[in-house]
Amino acid sequence: MASVQLSAVEEMEEKFLDAAARGHVSLLSTFLSHSPSLLNCSGHNSWTALMMAARNGHYDVAETLLSHGCDKLSVNHSSQTAYDIAKFWGHRHISDLLAGTPDQPQHVLQTSDLYQQDNYFNREPLDRQSERRADTAWLEAKQKSPDSVYLLFSNLSPMLSSQEDGPGTHTKVCRLGYEVVKELLHKPDSVMIFLGVEQRNTPSSSSTSSPQTNGIREPPAWFAINTDTEPAELLKLSREANSVFPQRPNRDLLTLSEDEAGIIAQARAVLAWHSRYSFCPTCGSGTKMEDGGYKRTCLNPDCKSLQGVHNTCYPRVDPVVIMLVIHPDGNQCLLGRKKVFPVGMFSCLAGFIEPGEAIEAAVKREVEEESGVKVGPVQYISCQPWPMPSNLMIGCMAVALSTDIKVDEKEIEEARWFTRQQVIDSVYRGSSPVFTMPPRQAIAHQLVKQWIGMTSNL
Amino acid sequence: MASVQLSAVEEMEEKFLDAAARGHVSLLSTFLSHSPSLLNCSGHNSWTALMMAARNGHYDVAETLLSHGCDKLSVNHSSQTAYDIAKFWGHRHISDLLAGTPDQPQHVLQTSDLYQQDNYFNREPLDRQSERRADTAWLEAKQKSPDSVYLLFSNLSPMLSSQEDGPGTHTKVCRLGYEVVKELLHKPDSVMIFLGVEQRNTPSSSSTSSPQTNGIREPPAWFAINTDTEPAELLKLSREANSVFPQRPNRDLLTLSEDEAGIIAQARAVLAWHSRYSFCPTCGSGTKMEDGGYKRTCLNPDCKSLQGVHNTCYPRVDPVVIMLVIHPDGNQCLLGRKKVFPVGMFSCLAGFIEPGEAIEAAVKREVEEESGVKVGPVQYISCQPWPMPSNLMIGCMAVALSTDIKVDEKEIEEARWFTRQQVIDSVYRGSSPVFTMPPRQAIAHQLVKQWIGMTSNL
Repeated sequence: MASVQLSAVEEMEEKFLDAAARGHVSLLSTFLSHSPSLLNCSGHNSWTALMMAARNGHYDVAETLLSHGCDKLSVNHSSQTAYDIAKFWGHRHISDLLAGTPDQPQHVLQTSDLYQQDNYFNREPLDRQSERRADTAWLEAKQKSPDSVYLLFSNLSPMLSSQEDGPGTHTKVCRLGYEVVKELLHKPDSVMIFLGVEQRNTPSSSSTSSPQTNGIREPPAWFAINTDTEPAELLKLSREANSVFPQRPNRDLLTLSEDEAGIIAQARAVLAWHSRYSFCPTCGSGTKMEDGGYKRTCLNPDCKSLQGVHNTCYPRVDPVVIMLVIHPDGNQCLLGRKKVFPVGMFSCLAGFIEPGEAIEAAVKREVEEESGVKVGPVQYISCQPWPMPSNLMIGCMAVALSTDIKVDEKEIEEARWFTRQQVIDSVYRGSSPVFTMPPRQAIAHQLVKQWIGMTSNL
Repeated sequence: MASVQLSAVEEMEEKFLDAAARGHVSLLSTFLSHSPSLLNCSGHNSWTALMMAARNGHYDVAETLLSHGCDKLSVNHSSQTAYDIAKFWGHRHISDLLAGTPDQPQHVLQTSDLYQQDNYFNREPLDRQSERRADTAWLEAKQKSPDSVYLLFSNLSPMLSSQEDGPGTHTKVCRLGYEVVKELLHKPDSVMIFLGVEQRNTPSSSSTSSPQTNGIREPPAWFAINTDTEPAELLKLSREANSVFPQRPNRDLLTLSEDEAGIIAQARAVLAWHSRYSFCPTCGSGTKMEDGGYKRTCLNPDCKSLQGVHNTCYPRVDPVVIMLVIHPDGNQCLLGRKKVFPVGMFSCLAGFIEPGEAIEAAVKREVEEESGVKVGPVQYISCQPWPMPSNLMIGCMAVALSTDIKVDEKEIEEARWFTRQQVIDSVYRGSSPVFTMPPRQAIAHQLVKQWIGMTSNL
C-alpha cells in the first residue's frame, strides 16, 4: 500500500487546492503571497487550482489565479484544460474568461478567440518614439543625461550578468550610464542606436511634448552600443562581478525576463542590420547612419537610392512562416527535425516568405517542399520577433489534406506525425516522452501548446 | 407617380431575382449563361439574388451564385448582407456556406471564420519549384525550350497589351518565346530570373521528378527578364500591336487578371531586388546572381557574408501592417489620407514593421503615431504581397480604446472616424459618398468591405 502520510509541502498543496475548490479567494491569496510556487501545482488527481475553480464555477478564484499568471494551458491526466472543464460543466463565464475574450472592446471584432499570445521577445517596455529620432538636439541631450540607460554589445552579443535568485539561474541585461560608455561613443568602430524611452503608466503622457525643463521629469531614454573593442576591456566597465558576453545567442538570449527580452530583440536586430548593411547595396559606396540608427544614407550623391524612398536605407526585417500542421483526423500534428537540432528534438516546420508571396501561400509551399504534405486552410495564431538577426516569425496552424510524408533531405532530416498524447507527454514532461520540444521561449512551443488546448477531447 | 413600366433590362432582372427567390436553379443558370451581368444585380428593394436565396433557404441557388463568383458582401438598403439574412431567418447551412467554412478540414481548427480572402496579387498560378533553382543544367534546358514563357520588364515595368473585351479595358501580360528574347539574355544589363512551372491539375505531379524524356511532357517553365534596353526597341519584339510598358505601377498593374497579377507580384519583387541590391551591403563589392535569381553572392572571397547564412544574399521582403481601426461603439472606423492621395480619398492606416517588433505591437504603435488613437485587441484578417517594390501587407482589424484624433502631419494629412453608412456609400458607390476608397485590388478596400459584412445590424 502507498503511504498516506503527506509531506509538509504536499499538505500545503492539498490545502491550497482545497481553497480553490471551495472558492475561498482570500485564503488562496494568502497562500500565494507566502508560496508563489503553489500557483501551478497539481494534486494527486493531476488537477490544478485553476481546474478546481473551473469545475466548481468559482469565477473569482479563476480570476485571481490568472492575475498571478498561472498556466491556463496545463492539462490533467485526461488531457483536459481548465477551459475544457469549465465548458463541460457549463460555467460559461469561466470558459469565456479562459478563452481570453472577457473585455468589451473585443466583442466588436466578433471573434471566438482573440487571446493575444504574449510570446517571448514580443514585449515593448520602451516607447520607441520614432518622431524623436530625427531630433538631433534632443537625442544629444538625452545621450548625455545621467538618467539614460546604455546597453553594451560586443560583436552583437549583449553584456549580461547572471543572477541566482529563485529556482535556476536568471540573467539580467547590464545597464550602464553615460559616464561609463562615453569613451566608446567616439571610437570609429562603435555604432550607437536610440531604443526609446521608458513607458509612463499615466495615459497619453508619451504623446505630450513637455520638455525636461517643464518641471515634469521625462522618463529615462535607452540606447544600445555595438563595438569591436576587446570584450575583456569592455567587461571592466561593468560594476557587476559576473558579467559576460554570451556566445550562443540562440540559447543564451532565452534566459532573460520578458521585458528585457523585448528590449534585446529590438536592439540586437537593429545593430545586426548596421553590421551587415554598412555599404550601399545599390552602388557599393559607404553610407552614414541617421535618425538615431533607423536609417543609413548613401554617401554617393549620384546614387539612385537618394531619389525617392528606397528600402535600402531602412532596417531589414525578414518575415518567416512557422506552422503547426494538423492531421485531417485532428488528433496528430506534423513536426520535423533539422540535422543541427539536439538529439530527439522535433519542432514546427518553418521557412522564409518569398517575394510576391502571401503568408498562407508560403505555409503551403514550405510544408509541401519540406515534407511532401499538402495543406488546406491556414490560420494565423501569433507572431514573434526573433533577433537572429532580424526575423519576424509568423505562427500559423494549417490543416493537412494529405498525410504521406516525403522529406526534402536538404532541408530537414525527418518529419513525423505525433499523436496528441505524445505531444502532451513532451510539453508537460511526462514520464517518457518520445521526443523533445524547443523551449517555451520559442513560438513553436507555444503553437503546440495552443493546439493541445484547442483540441482536448472530453 | 413613378412609372410602373419596366425596361427590357429591368424586366429580365426581375425574372432572374424571382428565379432565385423561388429556388429555380436551372432557370437561374440559363439566365446567367446568357447574361453574366445579372449576377450582382439588385431589384427595386435593393436585394440581390443571393439575398433572395438566403431569405428563402435555397442552398443550391446560393451555391450556384457563389460558383459564378457573385459578390457575397453586398448589402441591401438596411445594410444587411446575404449572410445576415440567412442567419436571421435561421438557414444555418446557408450562413455557414456564406461564412466560407463549408469544408471538413476547417473544422479541425475550430474557428468561427476561416474564410480565406483571395486578395489581388495573392494567386500562385505557378509552382515555384525552388528545388530546381540550383539545378543549372535543368534551368538551361528549360530556358531554351520552345514551351517556355518569358515576361519582359523594362526598368521594372512589365510589357503589357491592352485588350478591349467586355466592359472597360483589360490588360494582359505579353508572353514571349525564347527565340524572341535570346539576344537580350546575353546583354550585360539584363537580369533573368526563374519564376516556376505551370501548376498541373493532377495531384502530386509536381513532386515527381520525371524527366522530359520520360514520355510525360513537363509543364511549361516561366522566366522574367529586366533590361535597360531602349523600350521602343523592346516593343518591336511583341507580336501584339498595342503593347506598352506602363509607367505608373501603383495603378497600371491593377488591371490584370488575378492569375497574371500573382505572377507579376513575384517577378517584379525579385527583379526590383536585383536592381537595388547588386552590391554586397557588407563590404561594398560586386555580387553574382545564383539559384535562378533567388540568391546573390559576394565576389570578395574575404567577405564575412560568405561565412554561414546571411540575409544579405537573399531577396528582401518588407512586412507592413495595414489596419482598419474600429471605434469602441463598433459602428465607425478610422481612415486617414496622405497628401499624395487623390482628392477625397481615405484609406486604412499603415506602416512598416520595425526590427524586434510583433505584428500586433506595430499596429498599436503606427495607429498611435499617425492618429493619436490608442488601440486594444488586434486581429489578423488577411495579407497581400505588394510588389512596389516588395512589401508584404499584413491586414488587421483593431479596436480603439480612445477616440480623440491628433494627426502626425509628417505622416498623414487628415484622419477621421467614418460611420458605417458613410463607408457603405463609398464602397458600394451610393448616391453621394463623402469620401472615396482605394480600388478593390487594394487590401485596404477588402478590409473595409469585410468590416461592413461583419458588423451589419439587423
